[in-house]
Amino acid sequence: MEMSGVGPLTAALRMQNVVQSSSRWAQGQQYRPWTLRSLKLQPLSPVPSDIEISRAQTPKPVDQLAQEIGLLQEETEAYGRTKAKVRLSLLDRLREQPDGKYVLVAGITPTPLGEGKSTVVIGLVQALSAHLKLNSFACLRQPSQGPTFGVKGQRGQISTHISMLEISMLINESFNLHLTGDIHAITAANNLVAAAIDARMLHEATQKDKALYSRLVPSVNGVRRFSPIQISRLRVFLGMFLDFCNLKCDVMYELVFYIYIFGVGFFRLVVVDTNDRFLRKITVGQASTEKGHVRETQFDIAVASEIMAILALADGLGDMKTRLGRMVVGSSRSGQPVTAEDLGVSGALAVLMKDAIKPTLMQTLEGSPVFVHAGPFANIAHGNSSVLADKLALKLVGEDGFVVTEAGFGADIGMEKFFNIKCRASGLRPNVVVLVATVRALKMHGGGPNVSAGSPLPREYIDEVRHWRESTLHGLKQSSTTICVVRGNAEIDLVCQMAKESGASDAVPCHHWARGGRGSVELAQAVKQAGSQPSHFQFLYSQETPIVEKIRMIAQKVYGADDIELSPEAQAKIDYYNQQGYGKLPICMAKTHLSLSHLPEKKGAPTGFTLPIRDIRASIGAGFIYPLVGTMSTMPGLPTRPCFYDIDLDPVTEEITGLF
Amino acid sequence: MEMSGVGPLTAALRMQNVVQSSSRWAQGQQYRPWTLRSLKLQPLSPVPSDIEISRAQTPKPVDQLAQEIGLLQEETEAYGRTKAKVRLSLLDRLREQPDGKYVLVAGITPTPLGEGKSTVVIGLVQALSAHLKLNSFACLRQPSQGPTFGVKGQRGQISTHISMLEISMLINESFNLHLTGDIHAITAANNLVAAAIDARMLHEATQKDKALYSRLVPSVNGVRRFSPIQISRLRVFLGMFLDFCNLKCDVMYELVFYIYIFGVGFFRLVVVDTNDRFLRKITVGQASTEKGHVRETQFDIAVASEIMAILALADGLGDMKTRLGRMVVGSSRSGQPVTAEDLGVSGALAVLMKDAIKPTLMQTLEGSPVFVHAGPFANIAHGNSSVLADKLALKLVGEDGFVVTEAGFGADIGMEKFFNIKCRASGLRPNVVVLVATVRALKMHGGGPNVSAGSPLPREYIDEVRHWRESTLHGLKQSSTTICVVRGNAEIDLVCQMAKESGASDAVPCHHWARGGRGSVELAQAVKQAGSQPSHFQFLYSQETPIVEKIRMIAQKVYGADDIELSPEAQAKIDYYNQQGYGKLPICMAKTHLSLSHLPEKKGAPTGFTLPIRDIRASIGAGFIYPLVGTMSTMPGLPTRPCFYDIDLDPVTEEITGLF
Repeated sequence: MEMSGVGPLTAALRMQNVVQSSSRWAQGQQYRPWTLRSLKLQPLSPVPSDIEISRAQTPKPVDQLAQEIGLLQEETEAYGRTKAKVRLSLLDRLREQPDGKYVLVAGITPTPLGEGKSTVVIGLVQALSAHLKLNSFACLRQPSQGPTFGVKGQRGQISTHISMLEISMLINESFNLHLTGDIHAITAANNLVAAAIDARMLHEATQKDKALYSRLVPSVNGVRRFSPIQISRLRVFLGMFLDFCNLKCDVMYELVFYIYIFGVGFFRLVVVDTNDRFLRKITVGQASTEKGHVRETQFDIAVASEIMAILALADGLGDMKTRLGRMVVGSSRSGQPVTAEDLGVSGALAVLMKDAIKPTLMQTLEGSPVFVHAGPFANIAHGNSSVLADKLALKLVGEDGFVVTEAGFGADIGMEKFFNIKCRASGLRPNVVVLVATVRALKMHGGGPNVSAGSPLPREYIDEVRHWRESTLHGLKQSSTTICVVRGNAEIDLVCQMAKESGASDAVPCHHWARGGRGSVELAQAVKQAGSQPSHFQFLYSQETPIVEKIRMIAQKVYGADDIELSPEAQAKIDYYNQQGYGKLPICMAKTHLSLSHLPEKKGAPTGFTLPIRDIRASIGAGFIYPLVGTMSTMPGLPTRPCFYDIDLDPVTEEITGLF
Repeated sequence: MEMSGVGPLTAALRMQNVVQSSSRWAQGQQYRPWTLRSLKLQPLSPVPSDIEISRAQTPKPVDQLAQEIGLLQEETEAYGRTKAKVRLSLLDRLREQPDGKYVLVAGITPTPLGEGKSTVVIGLVQALSAHLKLNSFACLRQPSQGPTFGVKGQRGQISTHISMLEISMLINESFNLHLTGDIHAITAANNLVAAAIDARMLHEATQKDKALYSRLVPSVNGVRRFSPIQISRLRVFLGMFLDFCNLKCDVMYELVFYIYIFGVGFFRLVVVDTNDRFLRKITVGQASTEKGHVRETQFDIAVASEIMAILALADGLGDMKTRLGRMVVGSSRSGQPVTAEDLGVSGALAVLMKDAIKPTLMQTLEGSPVFVHAGPFANIAHGNSSVLADKLALKLVGEDGFVVTEAGFGADIGMEKFFNIKCRASGLRPNVVVLVATVRALKMHGGGPNVSAGSPLPREYIDEVRHWRESTLHGLKQSSTTICVVRGNAEIDLVCQMAKESGASDAVPCHHWARGGRGSVELAQAVKQAGSQPSHFQFLYSQETPIVEKIRMIAQKVYGADDIELSPEAQAKIDYYNQQGYGKLPICMAKTHLSLSHLPEKKGAPTGFTLPIRDIRASIGAGFIYPLVGTMSTMPGLPTRPCFYDIDLDPVTEEITGLF
């Protein structure tokens, strides 16, 4: 420290100032207790439409909400007045802060209309915070825009798409629209990789090796310089301590371009966030400029992109970048995997995704905080919101607080993947599991007539709920503390009783839809009670278990299958994945959500079936292997009369109609 | 007014309070003088890389900037710390405020590298505000993301894409990335229309009329209800005062579905904001679910969407909605145009675009305000930033201030369209035109070797500038006050002298790149001087002029052609457009920007050529007809070594490298 010309007292005072100001700074960095102001709800009867409920409430400015829950000013980035992205630096600041309780909301096998798990999440958080005065946070998936304009109720079918109701519980129409642009960023990143693959294949197919090399590693004033991305690949290929200066040019270019050659580009799935059925199967490259290099491919809806799964599983910017780089986008001439990093595109992907990685802060109708972040498909991916949103929320609520997060589809899919994929990636463990059951779904699975999206609900269901015991508790055995929440009317007491008999630690009815947080107080108390019990969570399988065994364990223990049956194609893929060192990845089953089996029409808890594994794919960037059980549509369509017929904007008041 | 139980004095005091507080409110609503704080630049020699310049500067928080330029708090919506959307309500508040001076920056026919018009815009605004202390505002187009990851210099080729340099002058890397998501909103809106068209065609082709009608106008409890969108179409079709109750059902459904039948869907251009050459020509609908209804189509880059042109020309939310609704997306069985409104999708489009219509406020390196808004292609569209950004800025700078906006490509394209399309739509008139000429471009057009993007610049140019007199001043005659700005080294004085001889009111050299605003002070003074002169602006043609005549006038007066030559296809289209009442729309020539003629290799000011009109298309929503002169690529490609090789993100510092 420079102190010349300063007396000892002055110096001491200065020192004291420094100490005081750093202690002030350190205080500012500490965990801040919440001062959350709840917004009053006036529950109405009959229940008005979702949008009317939403409009009747004035949200708190998001910077006020941020302050109430202890965020520093520099930790948020506002997007308009009711949304803000939260910076990941928060995790550093509150490193020493113990996590709150971690609550998972899952559902029984749903009807095609969805059973309202997200509304339970929000009702529960409102009850915990506005009524029990406990810090609590909801973590939700971002809905895809495609189905917003497509079929009402279809969101339940498309894993990522949250059912209609919970929207009524967020004061923000843009929840359903662009939000803070994360899905658009994923689309941009995904499509850059797709374009890069085909352009690369074209250039390789139409240029001599030497010309290709000269373009890839151009000579500037007679000196060829590799880009850092190229050097990193060469290091892997040639060993860590390669001395580039001693390589002869012609050796280098053989190596450089060789690793870029593709066999079958199994990645090229361009995505759009639109229900565009005509893009399910297409032929590209038909313009004369592409010199006959046509090929068949397909578009997926944006949320089906591997990049969405990566966003949901990454635990920081560095981790996301690594995962983006290791996405396998094709194979080389010699059959080796080629990654996004090899394509030279990983840095650009990280740049495109650098804001998407920050969770978006919003609020419920009663002013409780919500993170909306990521929304991967629940069949070809793991169907859970982001690890990072959960981690930030767990720090923010503090030791006595609650974070309520949600798993897509039924417990057999979303919850199983939450346990074995998401918790494995995050290192977090759930304290409480809430299982949502509607009387409607119980009836249908007990033998009622089929329910399909877009058609009116059949009036009669046969009153059978006994099947439920077996059908929905398979997955629960992994977690010790489980509460069942039941929605419905007549048979609600019977169902609660049966749930307790079946091993649930508690079972309570829920009326949050009509009464807001107040309708979930009983649930909140049960969750608080359950959260004080020890959790005995354990994984269903160890990572070291061979791929086939892992699949079999899920099929038998979660679905109730007798065994699995592998196609020769699936077996060949498993051999390849083992050879490439992917054998330790967790399994992400791509299965229908409408049955515990692979057959959507089998309701209840079917037995005596063998689960066929048609093919096995790999999302190496996201970090899982996904066996295909039956066919999964990754591009929904528009019906004859899509939702958009009723959607309108008043240009004067800027009010939106028909969006809910 | 309710005053029972209140004495007269109290009442009078209350009244006074009301008057005072409304007068305070009214004062708050008045125009606020600027208090702009300029940021100091430390010009360095040699000029550092753009990103280093940008990083060396700390931007003002955007809410501070907003306050400095007299925006009310409720008129902005922050997007992070350095960007904000500005609400259109500002136009109402400052309705009575006189506009500032309106300055257009255009360029001579460029080289493929672009000639840095945008940097002139920013340099000029910095000089006006930081050095001459005059309120001033820059209005720029939003760059497309595609070329950011593609070819350096390609942005010059793709009309919408601003050259590299001006990025150095904005303190915000996201200028080049997602910004506030406007282009993503356009993509979402465009692709919703595209999906709706094909889904509709499929449903019409595979359903009986009666079934189709039942789905389009479903019966709820025995009553069929038309959506407001359907009613509005039926009104047009059946006359304004149609009595729906008296129509028999079978009459109605014939009408309702009949108008939806398509012949050739000439809209279905899905867009992505990615350079994906393999999507230039594709076949869609090949999945079995589409039942053999395959067809050939193409993807364009997002900024080529008609919706981008609409965004740039709309003068409010209502006007944008109307334009979106009247986009022609196909034709009916009887050959009548079918619009987006007929498809039922116009309300949803307005909802998707409701935030995109608000211009984005940013700042230059020296802290001057910038609007970034819209960026339509300069060939198939009009290549100018938005009418709304210009209007908001003209109110904000006040009577003595300056708004500097920019037209894409050379004066023959961007400036001509600025005058005859943008000014016609906005009602605004330019006070000063600044024409940017680089010695490099002058040399090339004078006979130097070809310049191509991605290759090093050839060293020798033959020193010929005489051609310039004719080649660049065609368009200028429309505006009375013109200043030429010259960039380059050796021959700069000669060029300035020739410019004045050629009719420019002034000609000055410019050094803003190396010296920031200080390097443009001479230009700023010239602009200030020119702005005090009366403007004698007039349109090149009247709207009433027949289509063919309008095209001929542009070809002869602006390009110097002898005449035009219409293909039979073009002639047939003109007849159809006249029949549909589109004859009064202005003309938007789709021509190469590399020559005044239709042949890119013809440099200088060619004469003795006939301009061939291959085909004529119409953007009815945007409101212009565009004749095709030669082939225009609307989907750029990736080269062998795309820019993304050098783009990277440091996950710890979050610093981006290689983006500039």
